[in-house]
Formats: sequence, structure tokens, C-alpha cells
Amino acid sequence: MIQTIRWNGDREGAVVLIDQTALPDTFLEIEIRTPDEMAQAIRRLAVRGAPAIGVAAAYGVCLATRGLTDSADIMRAARNSVELLSATRPTAVNLPHMLARMRAALERGAHLAGHALRDSLLTEARNIHTEDVALCAAIGRAGAHLIRPGMTILTHCNAGALATGGTGTALAVLYEATRRGISFQVIADETRPLLQGARLTAWELSRAGIPVTVICDSAAAQCFAQQQIDLVITGADRITARGDSANKIGTYGVACLAHAHDVPFYVAAPSTTFDFNIADGAQIPIEERDAAEVWRIAAQGPKDDRIQVRNPAFDVTPSRLIRGWITECGVLSPPFDALRK
Amino acid sequence: MIQTIRWNGDREGAVVLIDQTALPDTFLEIEIRTPDEMAQAIRRLAVRGAPAIGVAAAYGVCLATRGLTDSADIMRAARNSVELLSATRPTAVNLPHMLARMRAALERGAHLAGHALRDSLLTEARNIHTEDVALCAAIGRAGAHLIRPGMTILTHCNAGALATGGTGTALAVLYEATRRGISFQVIADETRPLLQGARLTAWELSRAGIPVTVICDSAAAQCFAQQQIDLVITGADRITARGDSANKIGTYGVACLAHAHDVPFYVAAPSTTFDFNIADGAQIPIEERDAAEVWRIAAQGPKDDRIQVRNPAFDVTPSRLIRGWITECGVLSPPFDALRK
Repeated sequence: MIQTIRWNGDREGAVVLIDQTALPDTFLEIEIRTPDEMAQAIRRLAVRGAPAIGVAAAYGVCLATRGLTDSADIMRAARNSVELLSATRPTAVNLPHMLARMRAALERGAHLAGHALRDSLLTEARNIHTEDVALCAAIGRAGAHLIRPGMTILTHCNAGALATGGTGTALAVLYEATRRGISFQVIADETRPLLQGARLTAWELSRAGIPVTVICDSAAAQCFAQQQIDLVITGADRITARGDSANKIGTYGVACLAHAHDVPFYVAAPSTTFDFNIADGAQIPIEERDAAEVWRIAAQGPKDDRIQVRNPAFDVTPSRLIRGWITECGVLSPPFDALRK
Repeated sequence: MIQTIRWNGDREGAVVLIDQTALPDTFLEIEIRTPDEMAQAIRRLAVRGAPAIGVAAAYGVCLATRGLTDSADIMRAARNSVELLSATRPTAVNLPHMLARMRAALERGAHLAGHALRDSLLTEARNIHTEDVALCAAIGRAGAHLIRPGMTILTHCNAGALATGGTGTALAVLYEATRRGISFQVIADETRPLLQGARLTAWELSRAGIPVTVICDSAAAQCFAQQQIDLVITGADRITARGDSANKIGTYGVACLAHAHDVPFYVAAPSTTFDFNIADGAQIPIEERDAAEVWRIAAQGPKDDRIQVRNPAFDVTPSRLIRGWITECGVLSPPFDALRK
């Protein structure tokens, strides 16, 4: 399986990431040596996907301690890196969740010698990563029964191995179904503006031998009308207490279409994606990204300032449009009792 | 106003087209001297939009007669050009409608001397063009009352001056409302794969002083959810007897979203876009274009033959999702009695 994020323990330690901006043309691994470099990698989407950025950020805190031996220095550097990494992207809740765990590990280790404190931080980051691998596998097992032979499944954006530390969320379900010998095909929305569907999902699925057809996002509607889609599964970046689910821009439109055409729409996500502090999806902060992501393929840039460009990176699908949430604890519904501690 | 198509009577005559593939970066006019060149221009979308290709094809028939003096030669060349031009694009019905008119003019003039026959063909093409200008203006007047001050209107693809011989269909309504002093703003779907919204609609509207915001097609859904859209108007390429309307891929999805959010959805088109020979939109031939149009922005091309790409150029919006059809005879509903001869 693809290793999206890898801790390289040589020398002082570094994180190796697949640079997802280069795929599918180029498979490029980049070495990240500082929290600043990690923050940049997250912002420019070299690493993306809610679970993956949680794992990457956890390792990013470890990078802050490179070369430090004094506990107080380590505490200070690690705390600063938590602040820095928290501010990279606002929508996914896995990021603050995982950084809170790193912060807690840091505070628990405040009495330790420098060496031991660094070890305890790395242990926590490795645990976060290992747990994410297990969460992905469990999501796959929980959802695989939904995939029946001959089905066509639509997905939007990339919720696969490239979006997690493991095999993915939505795509973990597909990989597990494949492992069980079930044949099916996938329609991947290209996912404008940055084409994670065309570039990443198609690449992942074809490597796994799963037939995949890429369409423009706007072509999904007619596929629904022609009864070419049996099931929709997407990932999520934040899920509220009542089940409103933020995911890549366009997901809400797909959910509306699925609803209008009586096609079941599922969200696949680990418990780390749930934010029980809020109920209403309108409270989820939606990242607005640079207009150039939308505009650059069209032209040099608008020459007329009467032309505006908007580029929200996420939208929110209300709970009522979602048939079920595929989690490591099974296919759940609000109020998600199985996930509440 | 923009002159999308212009007959240049100098010497033997030629057609001057704005090359719409070069906009908005470059305003380039190209001279078309043969039916072959016109067929290529239509196929590669240098000229596009259902009414515009009807007008362009009519002039294309005139180009077939360049340098010919003998009636029989003219008849033969013109008939061949009708065949050639008919086969360029299958979905819009304006193209066969206008070519049928040229063919009828040709047959009516079979007894004429070569010079007079050529004149009669050019007269018919000019009439088609002049009538299209008048149809656009009448559509604008018929629909302008739908635009109220402060509204935000969503449109998909380009149904403006660049899509017609005149001021457009959907955009003619907006131009007429502006002429009446009504202020409003437009959200333009970028319209993948070829970005007619981002490249053409934004260019046209900003030139006319109308504020326009470009979004990815997939971002429209959230705009509806946030009640940012008051009205949708699009063009059409073929409208059946019961009102099923083919238009640029993605239009059907917008119509579903408008319906789900109680936003009125109108189609603007001249009577030349109606095809009373068919009732069911499923009978409209849908052009499937080269996959490279979808894929080329993502990468060099799929390296893995398990990755397929589909690129339907149009979809069909069923009549029930359309509030009204803005035509030169007013805002109509099925069975469109005002348009039936």
C-alpha cells in the first residue's frame, strides 16, 4: 500500500511525504525537516486529507525538537510548533484533535529529561499514525458489505490512502471489498479546482486494479439521471454532533443529486473526524483558498476587476442527506453513541 | 456589441469569426474561406453556441460557392457543404434547421443563373443572421422583467453574444435588464471542461459593466444552500416538444439544485432551438467529445488503461424542472403553442 507519510528515523529524524501536487505525472517523495516545512507542505496540499494532515502535523511537532537536548527548549519549541501547525488549515478537525494529543503528551512529559521527552513525543506521533492505519482498516471492514458485485460507486475528491496514514476512508471500503473478491467500478469526480479525483483517486484505484472512470464534476448529474450510479461514498473533514459533514467543495451538490435520484449517500470517516462540540454544520469554518487555484487554468488572471473569483475549499452536507456514517465502530447514525466517550 | 460572426464581402467573400478558444487572453479574429475551414472552426469550438453555429454554418454554405459561376457547379458544391456542415456537431438543432433553410433556398434557386444563385444563398444566410439578431433582442425584452434590482443570477456556460449572432439568449435578458437601469450581479459557473463560463461569460459581462463572480461548477450547490442565488437562466441547444432541454453538461445538475432550493430556473432560447419532432429528451443526440478536453489539465494523459475518461458535452434537463422558456414570443410553457406554425 502507498505510504503517504513515513517517519524516517535516520540521524535526527525527518518526515518523508509523497508530494501529492506532483501526482499523477511524477511520484516524488519529499523530506520534511522542520515544522515550518511541514506547515508549508500542509498549506500547499503536498499532504492533504483530514486524517493525513492530523498524522503529518503530529510528526511536525516532533521535528520541532530536532537537535534540542534541554527539556525547557523542547517544551518551548514543541508548543510553538503546535501553534504554527494549528493555523495551517481551518476546516478538518483531525488537525486540532491530533495537535491536542501532542500537546497533552508534551505536558505529561514536562518532568522528563530532554531525551526522554523527545522520545515520548515521537511515541505519541507514532501512535497517532498507527491508530490511523487501524482506523482505516476498521472503516473498510465496517463498510465493505455495502459494496455488491457489479455496482458503480461514485466518489468525490480523494478519501484514499493518499488522504490518510492507512488505506483511506471511502476508498478503504472499496479496497476491503476488492480484497473480499467483489468486482465493481468507480466513477471519480475530477474535483475542481485541484483535481484530487482525476489526479489522486484515479491513480490510487488503478494501481489497485479497480476500474475507474473520471468525469467532470458537472457530469455526475447526468450519470445519476441515467441510473449509472448505485452508491456514493465520500470522506469528511469535520462531522458535527448531528451529522452535518464538511467535505471537499462539491460534496453537498453530489449529496443533493443522490437524494433526488434515490441513491444512497454514505460518509466514511474515523471517529477523529467528529466534532461533538458543535451541532450545526454552519458553525464549521470553511477555508477560502486562493482564487488563482480556480483561475489559472482559464487564463493569466482576470484582467478586469469587475470579475471576481470565489474558491471555497469545502462545503457542508446536512445530516438529512446522509444515509449512514461508516466509522471504525460500524455504520452509524446520529447521535453516534458508539463514538462518544 | 461583440460581433461573433461577420460576413466580409470583400473580393470573393469570407466569414470573420472571433476565435473563442483564444479568449479571454487574446482577442483574435480569424478569416474562414471554405466550408472545410468552417466545419473545423465549428468542431474545435472557435465558434460555438447553438444559434451561432446555425448562422456560421449558413455562411459556410455560401463559402462553398466561391469562384464558381456555373449553376450546376454551385448546386453541387453547396449541397456537399450542407452535408459536411450538418455532420460537425449533433446536439444543437439550430444547425440542421439553418442548413435546411439554406438547402431550400438552393433548391428554390435551381433555375437561376450562377451569379443570381450565389446572391440568393447569401441573402438567405444574411437573413438568418439578421433574424438571429432580432430573436436575441426579443428574448431580452421578453425576459427582462424577471430580473429585479439586487438579484443574483446564476448562469452556466455561455449563452451570450458569443453564442449567437446577436446579444445572446440568457445573457440577452441580462443586457436588456441592464439597459433598463436594473442593477444585479451574476455568478458564472466556470463550466468544465472548456471553461466557457470563466473564459467567455465573465469576459462578456465584465465588458458590459455587469459584476460577475466565477466559481467552480461544484461550488454552485453551496451558493444555493446559502441563499445567494435568486434566479437561474441558461441557454439551450435543443428543446423538445414537451420542454426537455439539452444544454451544456452540468445544466441538469444546476436545475436539480435550483429545484431543491426553490430557486426558479429558466431556459432562454429562440424558436429555432425547438425540435417539435421529438418529445422525450432522451432522444436528443448527446455529443461525446475527446477525453483530452477533460484530462489535459490534470496530467499528460492517463498512463494506466484502467483509467477511463468520459466527456459528454451536453445533458438534458427535464421539463418539470424548468419554470419557463424565455423565447422571442414571451415566457412560454409546453406545449409552446405560440411557436408552432
